[in-house]
Amino acid sequence: MADPWQECMDYCMEVTKQAGSMIREALQKDIVVMQKSSPVDLVTETDQRVEELIISSIKAMYPTHSFIGEESVAAGAPSILTDSPTWIIDPVDGTTNFVHRFPFVSVSIGFTVKKVIEFGIVYSAIEDKLYSARKGKGAFCNDVPIKVSGQEDITQSLVLTEMSFREDPEHFNIMMDNMKAVLNIPVHGIRTTGSAAVMMCFVASGAADAYYHIGIHCWDMAGGAAIVTEAGGVIIDISGGPFDLMSGRLIIASSQAVAERLANEITEFPCERDDTEVINDDPDQ
Amino acid sequence: MADPWQECMDYCMEVTKQAGSMIREALQKDIVVMQKSSPVDLVTETDQRVEELIISSIKAMYPTHSFIGEESVAAGAPSILTDSPTWIIDPVDGTTNFVHRFPFVSVSIGFTVKKVIEFGIVYSAIEDKLYSARKGKGAFCNDVPIKVSGQEDITQSLVLTEMSFREDPEHFNIMMDNMKAVLNIPVHGIRTTGSAAVMMCFVASGAADAYYHIGIHCWDMAGGAAIVTEAGGVIIDISGGPFDLMSGRLIIASSQAVAERLANEITEFPCERDDTEVINDDPDQ
Repeated sequence: MADPWQECMDYCMEVTKQAGSMIREALQKDIVVMQKSSPVDLVTETDQRVEELIISSIKAMYPTHSFIGEESVAAGAPSILTDSPTWIIDPVDGTTNFVHRFPFVSVSIGFTVKKVIEFGIVYSAIEDKLYSARKGKGAFCNDVPIKVSGQEDITQSLVLTEMSFREDPEHFNIMMDNMKAVLNIPVHGIRTTGSAAVMMCFVASGAADAYYHIGIHCWDMAGGAAIVTEAGGVIIDISGGPFDLMSGRLIIASSQAVAERLANEITEFPCERDDTEVINDDPDQ
Repeated sequence: MADPWQECMDYCMEVTKQAGSMIREALQKDIVVMQKSSPVDLVTETDQRVEELIISSIKAMYPTHSFIGEESVAAGAPSILTDSPTWIIDPVDGTTNFVHRFPFVSVSIGFTVKKVIEFGIVYSAIEDKLYSARKGKGAFCNDVPIKVSGQEDITQSLVLTEMSFREDPEHFNIMMDNMKAVLNIPVHGIRTTGSAAVMMCFVASGAADAYYHIGIHCWDMAGGAAIVTEAGGVIIDISGGPFDLMSGRLIIASSQAVAERLANEITEFPCERDDTEVINDDPDQ
């Protein structure tokens, strides 16, 4: 039986490469920065132009499919995961890095059908590394198979996370206390590079052993989630329960043991679900 | 008048490239890890072999010169900066990254005469980026001139630092509180990539605006210090006073304003000087 979504994935690879070229070209020019929700939540014209390129290219080919894109959602589009074939898009993952030309800036696309991720693509544009994974077919970086480290001992692990200013001082303190708790296990170290999708791909390729984040979005996670899973990694919720793409949080790791140990160390703080509007409007949906 | 140290620098560039090749080759093989001072202070056979290569190559050419090398010092060699021409060497800056194949691993070499840094070379071996600077002659990455961002506004800055487990809980808490203070300014973000020398080169090339660290060593700083200075950056002590290569601490920044603002935000904690033994033995030296 033919794989019904492989054609979508092949097309997505081409569109993603074009999007990455647009990012690299933009890095050669002046970058105009705008603020979104806070002084540290930035957006540029490039974020918007790259998302338009991706969505218009895919819509031309697949007009009936649905889309959840970071910049479309910021502009008021709904962020509801349905059973429809859905493209979940972060045109520039690592916008702050992009603004500073810090070398981790990626295009991240995940594709779901009946709410299941069928494939994921993350293109680290400055590094020129194209990560990809089709469900059941393994994970690749520039067509070379990749796999997680398989590390089962947290004390031998390199851990990645995101660390950023938060308006709510309680959430900010919990975020920092979580880093202290993880460092104190002790682990080999914590690194933070500013692109969630690229950090997930570091775990997928064995260059780090775990990544956790509270306050992330589905468009940051969808592409990387497919890649980590196909590379043999584990994805769970911060609570230790099953991963939920719309929950705004996750732990990924090289093994169940490392994932669970992190879940035990990390204290939760509230973060918004990506589908909150729907839940608020109609709790039954 | 001929530049007496340019020949040393040219030779150093060649030795550094060889050392980088040795690191890349070692990454293809199994890595055997040993502990140094704590469970998170690691060393590998490669650190020792690369340092031997560098020191033996340079000694063959310049037999009267002095050396301060991370692994030689760990093995008991003195760490005293004299007026003699001195090569200050970190064979593998980012050993934990090397162990995990996390992509920032560098060879860092600084060369001092009469305690002044005459040139610095940092080779980020996985990225294949060779940073170099000769005093008064500018800074380069792969022969292309680089310069700092020139950013003067801390709230528009991307800040780099090191974050690691510390045995002393008070020092550990101050380190984490410093990160909170910096994030709360707020800055655009904090990144930490695990190689001090590479982080210094990110500032030198404008990909980040500042870097600070308490508990670093002269061999982590000497190469990068030359590169940042020649790229137009500022280096000061954590206290805001003049930079001291043997002090174990520094702030570097794209501008005096950003450097001083960081000095105001950061609380000091004691860290060992690299030349402590001498000071303890004979305070007059």
